[in-house]
Amino acid sequence: MNRSLSSILIAAATLVTALPAAAQFAKPEDAIKYRKGAFTVMAAHFGRVAGMAQGKIPFDAKVAAQNAEVATFMSTLPFAGFGPGTDKGETRAKPEIWAEMDKFNAGAKKMQDEMAKLNAAAKSGNLDAIKAAAGEVGKTCKGCHDDYRKE
Amino acid sequence: MNRSLSSILIAAATLVTALPAAAQFAKPEDAIKYRKGAFTVMAAHFGRVAGMAQGKIPFDAKVAAQNAEVATFMSTLPFAGFGPGTDKGETRAKPEIWAEMDKFNAGAKKMQDEMAKLNAAAKSGNLDAIKAAAGEVGKTCKGCHDDYRKE
Repeated sequence: MNRSLSSILIAAATLVTALPAAAQFAKPEDAIKYRKGAFTVMAAHFGRVAGMAQGKIPFDAKVAAQNAEVATFMSTLPFAGFGPGTDKGETRAKPEIWAEMDKFNAGAKKMQDEMAKLNAAAKSGNLDAIKAAAGEVGKTCKGCHDDYRKE
Repeated sequence: MNRSLSSILIAAATLVTALPAAAQFAKPEDAIKYRKGAFTVMAAHFGRVAGMAQGKIPFDAKVAAQNAEVATFMSTLPFAGFGPGTDKGETRAKPEIWAEMDKFNAGAKKMQDEMAKLNAAAKSGNLDAIKAAAGEVGKTCKGCHDDYRKE
């Protein structure tokens, strides 16, 4: 990770804990809409890097690096939207999230860490490194979706 | 704007033009979902700064700066989702966007510029500067919504 993004990520991570979730969103549905939006944007950018890693999209090192950078930034955002009271409504999030929040947060952290490694790999321009790192990110996505997202 | 965010914004802005929109999203509905998600996240973060500017949320310089930084990053993203063929579907976007794309893009650029100024103001910690800059951002939001978003 370059130092500039690192400083932004630290700022963003501080943000997540700077206010209680209840104070960050006026209504639970706002938090749900926010986290969905953040995941959507993250997935779009990660998906392009993953598509290159899987050979589904022609590899372009510059485009991969740009998308990995945005995905890494986005990875810091959605978890602020899982505060108390945001388990009901237009969401596929399972109640287990709030029952085992420490485990859920550890999964989030793991995803963020693997995404940061993908970002570093993408900056290197080495497709084999990108393939390996994208696979690790994908595992963290799947792990949480299997445990915490309804079909 | 600090240099680190500036470099990220340049990377993000390059991203928007790096691929034709049609190549960035597999389906038009993916682009629509993406731009909505990016606007939602941007609005949540800008809204906190605007709330402080309006005296609706207690002013906290650090929190304002963090939120302005995320809003500024997010301001670079949604417009990649307005490619050809994304005028139909689950969207309140008016057809005028695609009929006068140059004007629409100029409005987007104006919003991004004003958001960057708000980010600089928020970093300064000067509430009066934040109030003035947030008002200018708000005008650019309202201008485009009036012209290009259905009720």
